[in-house]
Amino acid sequence: MTSRKSQSAKPDETPPKAVISRLSLYLRELQHLVRNGQQTTSSSGLGQRLGFSDAQVRKDLAYFGQFGHPGIGYRCEELIPVIRGILGTDRGWPVAMVGAGNLGRALLGYKGFARQGFRIVAVFDIDSATIGRVIEGVQVYHFDDLEKVVAAEGIKIAMIVVPATAAQGVADRLVAAGLEGILNFAPVTIALPESVNTVGVDLAIELEQLTFSVVKRRRG
Amino acid sequence: MTSRKSQSAKPDETPPKAVISRLSLYLRELQHLVRNGQQTTSSSGLGQRLGFSDAQVRKDLAYFGQFGHPGIGYRCEELIPVIRGILGTDRGWPVAMVGAGNLGRALLGYKGFARQGFRIVAVFDIDSATIGRVIEGVQVYHFDDLEKVVAAEGIKIAMIVVPATAAQGVADRLVAAGLEGILNFAPVTIALPESVNTVGVDLAIELEQLTFSVVKRRRG
Repeated sequence: MTSRKSQSAKPDETPPKAVISRLSLYLRELQHLVRNGQQTTSSSGLGQRLGFSDAQVRKDLAYFGQFGHPGIGYRCEELIPVIRGILGTDRGWPVAMVGAGNLGRALLGYKGFARQGFRIVAVFDIDSATIGRVIEGVQVYHFDDLEKVVAAEGIKIAMIVVPATAAQGVADRLVAAGLEGILNFAPVTIALPESVNTVGVDLAIELEQLTFSVVKRRRG
Repeated sequence: MTSRKSQSAKPDETPPKAVISRLSLYLRELQHLVRNGQQTTSSSGLGQRLGFSDAQVRKDLAYFGQFGHPGIGYRCEELIPVIRGILGTDRGWPVAMVGAGNLGRALLGYKGFARQGFRIVAVFDIDSATIGRVIEGVQVYHFDDLEKVVAAEGIKIAMIVVPATAAQGVADRLVAAGLEGILNFAPVTIALPESVNTVGVDLAIELEQLTFSVVKRRRG
């Protein structure tokens, strides 16, 4: 990234992961601006609350095209669908969840997923006390029904919310069932074939960002 | 960031937020390498699985000093405490949680916090059915006892796990009680004085990173 100059990125280059994760943040900021009645913004306006420079914002968006208007900046309502299109959230995604334990149930009630187009349509477990129940409006199936339900619902994305020891076995089964993306909440790194995308969620990272700021302020 | 050249960062400059969030990822990768018995690594080795270039890794670490050894690279066991020191997680942090609902209870059982030095020592709620109980080994107090418990336990960091409508009120009360850092799981942006650090957790962002990869693969 350091050797590449601002504006020189071509739309057909594959952007680094970090750019994609900043796109999500830009999207949230744009959604926030729209809720507050703001119609346009600038590279510096978009980066400011997020702690990114205007040059960074411009460079990130330049991977995908030219979106600013001279004398106006970015039109929020225009840029939001562009970013959703890039991220693939311009359509709805049915999502499967494996594991109906405490964290799984809590995530079923998490409002942030549906707001961005993710709908959990099936939960899988192996606990007979849970199978057949409906939690937060979502049916719990036996894990053995995975392939059948995934095919019927056209599910391509799944969340793993099982204990660390069970995560790899679940992941292998998901891959065999044709899943293309896996979000892993289990506190363990899972190995997957190249053809399947995986993201691990580590909630402690957010706390670390906080302690850095707290410690810096004390030192500072 | 784009105008600053590799290696030119001075240790006393305040690094951008993005650098700090990458430090957390480098730390996890180093911890992963150590678990797998690897003693040393390089800038490219550290960045590879994370999708960052070796130049990016070098530039990020250069904010804080010079850690590589000629002909060896980075010694994992040496770099881990350095990064923990920068992030402030070289000590234990007692953490308060406000809200003992589904997500709160699930987070109490989340193993990833303790592993990085975060210990939830008190939970606060206003539901009389929950107050006085012990969940996952943690005492639930009435929210009115906040100031007393925070002072007694020396708590500086709190997680907000309450409904969106209650989040701002809880945040104001936490600030008044002397908290310095707030991790907000409520799906709403909270306004805080400059002196308090806040991080919002948006679990849908991870899913968006996944759909980007899935869609890119289909397009590609």
